[in-house]
This record gives sequence, structure tokens and C-alpha cells, in this order.
Amino acid sequence: MNEYVPGLEGVPATKSNISFIDGEKGLLAYRGYPIEVLTKQSTFEETALLLLDGELPNAHDLEEFDRQMRKNRRVKFRIRELMRQLPPTGHPMDMLQSMVACLGMFYPGSDCLTGDACEDLNYVHNMSVKIVARMPTMIAMWEHIHNGYDPIEPRTDLTHAENFLWMLTGTDPDPEMARILDVCLILHAEHTINASTFAVLVAGSTLASPYAVITSGIAALSGPLHGGANQQVIKMLEEIGSPEKAGAYIEKQLSAKKKIWGFGHREYSVKDPRAVILEGLMHNLVETRSGEVGPLFEIALAVEKAATERLAGKGIYPNVDFYSGVLYREMGIEPDQFTSIFAMARCAGWLAHWKEQLGQNRIFRPTQVYTGERDKAYISIDKRG
Amino acid sequence: MNEYVPGLEGVPATKSNISFIDGEKGLLAYRGYPIEVLTKQSTFEETALLLLDGELPNAHDLEEFDRQMRKNRRVKFRIRELMRQLPPTGHPMDMLQSMVACLGMFYPGSDCLTGDACEDLNYVHNMSVKIVARMPTMIAMWEHIHNGYDPIEPRTDLTHAENFLWMLTGTDPDPEMARILDVCLILHAEHTINASTFAVLVAGSTLASPYAVITSGIAALSGPLHGGANQQVIKMLEEIGSPEKAGAYIEKQLSAKKKIWGFGHREYSVKDPRAVILEGLMHNLVETRSGEVGPLFEIALAVEKAATERLAGKGIYPNVDFYSGVLYREMGIEPDQFTSIFAMARCAGWLAHWKEQLGQNRIFRPTQVYTGERDKAYISIDKRG
Repeated sequence: MNEYVPGLEGVPATKSNISFIDGEKGLLAYRGYPIEVLTKQSTFEETALLLLDGELPNAHDLEEFDRQMRKNRRVKFRIRELMRQLPPTGHPMDMLQSMVACLGMFYPGSDCLTGDACEDLNYVHNMSVKIVARMPTMIAMWEHIHNGYDPIEPRTDLTHAENFLWMLTGTDPDPEMARILDVCLILHAEHTINASTFAVLVAGSTLASPYAVITSGIAALSGPLHGGANQQVIKMLEEIGSPEKAGAYIEKQLSAKKKIWGFGHREYSVKDPRAVILEGLMHNLVETRSGEVGPLFEIALAVEKAATERLAGKGIYPNVDFYSGVLYREMGIEPDQFTSIFAMARCAGWLAHWKEQLGQNRIFRPTQVYTGERDKAYISIDKRG
Repeated sequence: MNEYVPGLEGVPATKSNISFIDGEKGLLAYRGYPIEVLTKQSTFEETALLLLDGELPNAHDLEEFDRQMRKNRRVKFRIRELMRQLPPTGHPMDMLQSMVACLGMFYPGSDCLTGDACEDLNYVHNMSVKIVARMPTMIAMWEHIHNGYDPIEPRTDLTHAENFLWMLTGTDPDPEMARILDVCLILHAEHTINASTFAVLVAGSTLASPYAVITSGIAALSGPLHGGANQQVIKMLEEIGSPEKAGAYIEKQLSAKKKIWGFGHREYSVKDPRAVILEGLMHNLVETRSGEVGPLFEIALAVEKAATERLAGKGIYPNVDFYSGVLYREMGIEPDQFTSIFAMARCAGWLAHWKEQLGQNRIFRPTQVYTGERDKAYISIDKRG
């Protein structure tokens, strides 16, 4: 008999060989490969295929996957027409749930999923490509459409990260920024069983279509307790306003026992390994540009310095959200799109978990501790208080 | 240390006082009231409010809730325009996920959800009304739009069930059919922690908006292992084709050890109490109409007789899906909409669980049993097999 643990913390909900965290050593590895090596030597495309298939692809398979991804970037014009009817003030994460669910209406076929083992691996692969390839397109489309402009068509001559920046800005992407985005996508692609990945497992276990499954993941990620902290970091940095005010702000927050956004992480007792990588990229970028970077950079560096001096002794360090927001902002990405970019990266991990779930499927049906009343007598309405 | 149980079967995932099942006694109760008394004396509206608030409402509160529900039946014309852009062949459950997520773009405000306790019960109540009231409208709209017709506007002078039949058919609903639908809605409104309700808890625990939360529930319900069995019942009855063929069909399926759709239920070792109620309604209807009912009725009665003779000894009885499909078909509802009607009823229970989760919130973050590799060395692509 298992006892009740709120949030199922520490309760194993699945067997998985997709990713692994050692929070004491500061290790995150996908399919056995530490993220440090993947962000240095791999690409988002290769990492996505590694997550989906379990092995590093050979040259032919990677080329084929890349070709499929490029070919599948376009979305039907009805998706554009749908977006034009959405309220311009709506949140991009709501748009994304809605549009991914719509995609499912254009690409049926989940009948081939049969439970104990998924019988049609081709279907699983093809749908995964369609979803990973189209997410950036829809996110960039919305950025233009909600501002009243026509979207910018995807290109097939660019990498996944380059093409996203192209679709957002309509200019050829700066190679260093594209590489930074690529690293951000790798770092956000997977992170064991968090709430959104768990939502994917639950929906997947009913043999719902991959579009319904990913919609479920996006819905869970949209919650402010899950995605969205990097958006708060930018708000905080803008509030601070200039580097010399960082120290006083941190002091004030800490004495009021308030949260410093972008610091600390439940999974890691040492520095979040993703933050280490992003921090390096941020310092590199400042160097390459001889300091010619946006104003938030300097504020962020000052906050990092001030907060680390006071918090590192307690094992609290800047996390992945602290740096990713600043970097995204430097790419010209609006803060309300940060969680969408998280989703666009994470969908690779979600789809890997969906595939794994299909191969060992059992529908999720936990139980409850019933704390309510029993055997109540119905009282007719004229006799109620 | 909890051990790994596939599908978390028997693992308590929440404390709840919303509903209770005793599978050995054939008991299902909402907030302590057995469904037998609710289906006899209550209405869907009152039951929904009972689920949401925990108590049977007094006359004033019920009247106010009913007034709010009627007032909130209409959806914005942009929802209609969105539906017109959806592929007519798409599944209603995909439409429903997409359109509920869209609704969230029109009604923001989940910022007032703050975690440990939900601070704005008015927000929770108002959003619950909006969702429960609008689900039938969107389901009925889709039925017309995907067939190429303009939708039929909701009316405020009808009950929830009556208005749904009105919007579907454009004719004043037969009172007996409306009452049968009302009972079906009550019976499907809640059923403890199944996969879709669990998906609601997981998404809700991230403090996602109620629209994202319900979208997640619909996504999980759309899977063929969860919703959708009543659609299979109709397919089976149509395949059988006439009452005299029922015996031979059942014999053939049982000797081939194949499933009889609509028979047996994991939660109940005796007859599903919801099935008992629907069976009664079905027999009443045949009587009222002096046998003037659709052809599926007689086939269903013959299948019930033939299967019960052979299976009752093994504790396998017709379940809720066996009768609901036949009754929905008699109302002129298309089989691919059956799961949508399930969702339209269940959203009351989902929203009750969402509210309960907010009051005791802890984000779901279970763990995994890691079965994968560690410390793999990255091999450059030209050296891979």
C-alpha cells in the first residue's frame, strides 16, 4: 500500500531511459550524454533525434531527419486564417495549445496506436517530425499576426534555430545568436518527469493522438509554477533599471525574504548545469560584441554578482531561467513568448516520452484518499437553509 | 520509499471529497449523495453546482447559478469564424480542445490563482460557469458547421439539456428525451480520479488557466482507452444488424475470446450503478413509445439479453456505455459526438477537482525509475555506424 504524497513527490510514475539528473553533482544527461558535450558538439536537430530514437544518428539518418524537418516547416493556410480570428491580446501559450490541437484535425491516424506496444513506429516518427518542425512556425506566425502583420514564411536553407530567428525578424540571423538559440533549445529539450512531461504521459496513456498529447503538455507548461520564470526575470531586471541599483535591490528583497527570480532550483543542490553553459555564452557574447549589448545584460551581470555573493554560500545560484530570458531578449524575442520557446524545445522530449509510454503502456488511473461525506439524505429544495 | 506501480494503479494521488465509488456494492455518490437519488430528484444544473460547491444549493443560489449558466451560453462570433476554418473531417474532440483553449484567450485573469490557497473564489466560480455553459454550444455549433450549415443560437428559456437538444436539432425538444439526456449528463458528471480528471489535477497544479486545465482533461478523454467506448457499442450494434442475430454474434465473440463492447467495468465487480439507471430509462422509453423506437434499440435489448445470460455469472454486466450510446443515437446525436457529450458532462467534475486542487495545491512532480545508460562518450558523426 502506497501512502499519499502531495504532488507525488518522489513517487516513481514511470520507467524511463530518456534523461537523468544528478542534482548533487550538477549532472543532466540525455540518453547517457551529458548536456555539456551535446551543447558543444551537437545541434538541436541531432539532439531531438537522439531523444526520439535513443541513439546518436549516423550521417544518413540525421540528414534524412533534417530534410524531413525542413520540409515540414510550413503550415496550412487555414492555420494562418485561424490565427487571424484569435484575439490579438491572447497569450501565445493559449494560441499554441489551440493550434496544436487544430493540427490534429488535419492529420488524423492515431488509430494505429494499440496499447501494449505501439504498432506503427512510422506514424510515431512522422507525427513527431510534423510537431517539432511546425512549433517554431506557429510561434513566429503568432508574433506577426497578433501585431497585425502577415507572417514570414519559413525557409528550407536554414537550420531549425536559424529559421526561427528568420521567421521572427525577417532578416538573415546573426550566426552567434543562432548558435546561442540552438544551445538554449538543446538545454530545454528534456528534463525528466516534470509536470508537463507527466501530463504528456497521462494523456498518452489513453492512446490520445500526439496532437492531443502535446496540447496537454503545453497546457501544463503554461502554468506560472512551471514555465514562465524567465519572463519574471526580465520584469525584475527592467524594474531594477540600471546596474548600480542591483546591489540595493537584492539586499532589499533578501531582507524582506522575497524571491529573487531566476535563482535556485529544486532539482539541483549545486549550480544548475544548464545555467553554467548559458552563463558562459552570455560572457562570450559580451566579449564578441565588445560590450555592445542590450542594457539588460549589464543589469543581469550586476544582479548575478550581487546575488551570488550573498546566496552562493546557501547553495543558491542563478538557474537556467536567469540567463535564457536575457539571451532571448537580446535576440529580439518578446518576454510573453519565452514559454513558447520552452515548449518548442521541450516538445522533442515530450514526444520521446510519448513514444516510450506507448511501448510500455498502462492507462494512468491512480486512486484518491476520500475525505468527504457518505450516505447523505437528499433534502428537497424548499427545505434547504 | 514508494515502489513503481505502472499507471499508478492504487497509488493515492490526491485527497478529495468530491465523489466516492464502492465497486463491490455498486455505489457511486457525489458529495455523499448516491447517483440514484440525484438522477431521480436533481437536475444537471443542481448536480453541477453540488459538485462545484460541495453542498446542495438553496433555492436562491440555484436560481442564480441557473441564470448565470443561461446567460453564458452564447459564444463570441470569432469562435464561429474559427470553427469555419477547421477541416470539416476533423474529430469533435480535437475541435473541443482547440476551442476551449481559444476561449482562454478571450477570458484571461488566472493571475489571481496563487497556489497554496486559491485566493479568488469568484474567479474560479465565474470561469466554471463560462466553461460548463459554453461546452454544449460549441459541440452543437460544430455539428452544424462541419456539415456546412450555420449554427443554431442557444435559447435562454430552456434547461441545459433541453437547450443542447434544441441547438442540435432546431426543434423544440421532446420532454422525455430531454429528461433522459439530463440523467445521462448527471451520470457522466464525475467518477473519481480517472485519467482525464488526473490530467486536470496535473495541469491545475501548475496554476494554468482553467481553459488550459479543461483542455488537458479533454485531451486525455479523447484517447480511445478512456472516452469513446459508447461509440464502439453503436458500431457493434450496427454490425449485428437485427435482433435475431444478437445471440449468434455474442456466441461467436465469446468463443473467439473477443471483447463485447459496453460490457464490464474495471471499477465495479457488480453491475455499474449508472447502467442500472440507464437501463431503466431505456425500458421506460420503449414502453412510452409503444415500441416505436429506432432499430438499434431492439438489437441492443437482444444483445443485452444474450450477453447477460452468458456473462452475468462472471460478474460482467452491461456498463454505462452500453446504454448511453443507444439513447444518444435515439436523440439524433452522431456517434462521433458521444465523447464530446461525455466531456460536456464531465467538465463539471473536472472543474470541481480543479477548485479542490487549488485549495491544497502542490505541483505534480513524480519521479522515474531510470533504466537508461550513463556516461556515454560522444562519437563524432563520421565515426558512427
